[in-house]
Amino acid sequence: MKLETPPGTRDFLPEEMVKRQEAVDRIRATFERYGFSPVETPAFEYAELLEGKYGEDEKLIYKFEDLGGRKLALRYDLTVPLVRIVAMNQLPTPFKRYCISRVWRFDRPQKGRYREFWQCDVDIVGVKSMSADAEIIACAMDALDGIGLKDAKFKLNSRKVLDEIMIKLGVPKEKELAVFRGLDKLDKQGEKAVREELEKAGVKNIDKIFDVLKIDNIGGLKKLIGESEGVKELEELMGLLKTYDKKVVLDLSMVRGLDYYTGPIFEAELGSYGSIAGGGRYDTLIGRIAEKGDVPAVGISLGIERIIEVMREKGLLSERKTCTSVYVLCADEESKEVTLQVVKKLREAGINTDFDLLGRNFSNQMKYANNIGVAKVVIVGQKDLKEGKVTVKDMKSGEQKQVNTNKITESI
Amino acid sequence: MKLETPPGTRDFLPEEMVKRQEAVDRIRATFERYGFSPVETPAFEYAELLEGKYGEDEKLIYKFEDLGGRKLALRYDLTVPLVRIVAMNQLPTPFKRYCISRVWRFDRPQKGRYREFWQCDVDIVGVKSMSADAEIIACAMDALDGIGLKDAKFKLNSRKVLDEIMIKLGVPKEKELAVFRGLDKLDKQGEKAVREELEKAGVKNIDKIFDVLKIDNIGGLKKLIGESEGVKELEELMGLLKTYDKKVVLDLSMVRGLDYYTGPIFEAELGSYGSIAGGGRYDTLIGRIAEKGDVPAVGISLGIERIIEVMREKGLLSERKTCTSVYVLCADEESKEVTLQVVKKLREAGINTDFDLLGRNFSNQMKYANNIGVAKVVIVGQKDLKEGKVTVKDMKSGEQKQVNTNKITESI
Repeated sequence: MKLETPPGTRDFLPEEMVKRQEAVDRIRATFERYGFSPVETPAFEYAELLEGKYGEDEKLIYKFEDLGGRKLALRYDLTVPLVRIVAMNQLPTPFKRYCISRVWRFDRPQKGRYREFWQCDVDIVGVKSMSADAEIIACAMDALDGIGLKDAKFKLNSRKVLDEIMIKLGVPKEKELAVFRGLDKLDKQGEKAVREELEKAGVKNIDKIFDVLKIDNIGGLKKLIGESEGVKELEELMGLLKTYDKKVVLDLSMVRGLDYYTGPIFEAELGSYGSIAGGGRYDTLIGRIAEKGDVPAVGISLGIERIIEVMREKGLLSERKTCTSVYVLCADEESKEVTLQVVKKLREAGINTDFDLLGRNFSNQMKYANNIGVAKVVIVGQKDLKEGKVTVKDMKSGEQKQVNTNKITESI
Repeated sequence: MKLETPPGTRDFLPEEMVKRQEAVDRIRATFERYGFSPVETPAFEYAELLEGKYGEDEKLIYKFEDLGGRKLALRYDLTVPLVRIVAMNQLPTPFKRYCISRVWRFDRPQKGRYREFWQCDVDIVGVKSMSADAEIIACAMDALDGIGLKDAKFKLNSRKVLDEIMIKLGVPKEKELAVFRGLDKLDKQGEKAVREELEKAGVKNIDKIFDVLKIDNIGGLKKLIGESEGVKELEELMGLLKTYDKKVVLDLSMVRGLDYYTGPIFEAELGSYGSIAGGGRYDTLIGRIAEKGDVPAVGISLGIERIIEVMREKGLLSERKTCTSVYVLCADEESKEVTLQVVKKLREAGINTDFDLLGRNFSNQMKYANNIGVAKVVIVGQKDLKEGKVTVKDMKSGEQKQVNTNKITESI
């Protein structure tokens, strides 16, 4: 029998899981502070719900047939299930939900790319105005702040503005996609390669396009295309973000992959690590499947897998190896019962506490305590107990002190 | 297009999800207090790993073929993936892990039975002695206490003792399974039906079997089968549980379904709700797939889906409808900016706060605040602001008070 996980999937042992859980819990706390509530949906959907939503990436949908012959697919992202929920239910408007959960893609597994991975989304459904976009961006920025990624640069653009620019520059509708796809590769392939690609695609006015992309302020945009709807939205959004004390930069070269965006789009870039979050407005996606027609919506997805790798490289992940903070060592056979009493007391005080279950000798207990990475050990032995005391040792500093057995909780 | 979830699966909207999450968070906190750490494994495994582990229920394994032709199966439980992890990795011993996550069974969906549901397990791997069984039982009891289910009765039995009794009563090995399966139905079908079933199966000594089942103390057991290994284990375990201040009852009629148990088995029963948790020792399961041979292990699974239903019926679930605690209302156009300042301040203080994104009038804002079930609203309007104040209203009591704008955090 193959003792392994299927390709592109992973086990998370405690040492890894504790770190992930701490990061996720902190993000979740920020989402909740911003008035978002959790939603969960099944791991799989009817395949037809997912089809036709992901453009080129459609081939990555993890389809399968269940034992009853149903054509199903494992969730590709958290957005389409949200859209289904909104289509199926009468929900309070606005509907503010977050979801931190697994998705699956039938991709070729490689470094940093998995068939099963976690996504981390916040969305607001039912608000047409830019106040929702501002709330989403501010929330995402605070969520990144909350895990120590304070230097992320938030880039802002708009699908509407891009369309308006294409019209202004005389790029015909059927060439637009080629231009956007080219721009999407600008970061990775550089201007020269993208210029060549656009030429090959028969796009004209390429110099002008690249000139326009350098515009980085609303004033410049207005000069080019006037007070258009897209520009007004961006102006309003940037104004709102100022009242949140959040700084974003206009970057007309940032187009995002998914073809369902209809308004502002945004991306968080962290230096050489590249994009760690991205989202935008999708006002027509719900209408595509809901009888009630279009419902405005905007959301962002934090690239949680990437973010955890960045946190690891920057030393921002928890140093804990397990959830256990304190290990209570039993120095001699006679102290066994008191050891358990001390353990009970610490646990009742809400302290994550463990102790020996194997009847190991003192040095092996200490080895294990080291191994699971506790912050402190408590040593219970007859010598101390005769004075009504136990010894508390800080594992980092090595410092030791004797404390009264009945003061043990306070001393930790 | 069918706008529905596949059969046997569910969406969890915020009102439900908030309740589930609170219950799960509380259970998780107890597990961590007892020195357990989280582990996660993929949603699917190679099918052959799951096969041959679940006896009669093998047919419920949710098998499928992936796009690459691999024979996979969605996780049936959390135990077999744990066993795989132990077989594959060098882990600290003892290995104490918890997992609260989804599993899937291709069962006929019906009330309270799903194709996708959550399990909630704690296990200790690597400890042969009863100290691990005691730790598991104590932890499960405290976890149930922690969510308000203090009246659960913990029933204890032992596969070893059952075997010893069968030998004593002269029930041949090949009839044992029929006896255990019969006993398993005792609660639901009553003594008469089970007696008939045993007779039909050709089991002899049925009167004697039912007499023995009434033994409810170690003394009685000893009289019947002497100081056997199984009896000694139960005696030791009950002694240890006393030092934890935990009370369990011996119930020889409680046999558990899974055929991999090898020692003590236990079950938590909550009055008319029946079994809400169960587990036991499985010392040979890891050896079945691991090259390193047998590794002792013991664990318990809290029936989290059932538990949530019980909590609902007993009114123990959170009353919150969303995560949001405070809603800040804007009484007039001029107060918009101050409203956002107040929201920011509350959020920075860690209070889950929301406000109007739709430009609604006052009464519609209040309606929405009611709708999402906040505990308090803060009213920001020019009249109060002129005195440097805002109004705080408690939504339950209806009580209102004016507070200084810069004291708003403390007052909530």
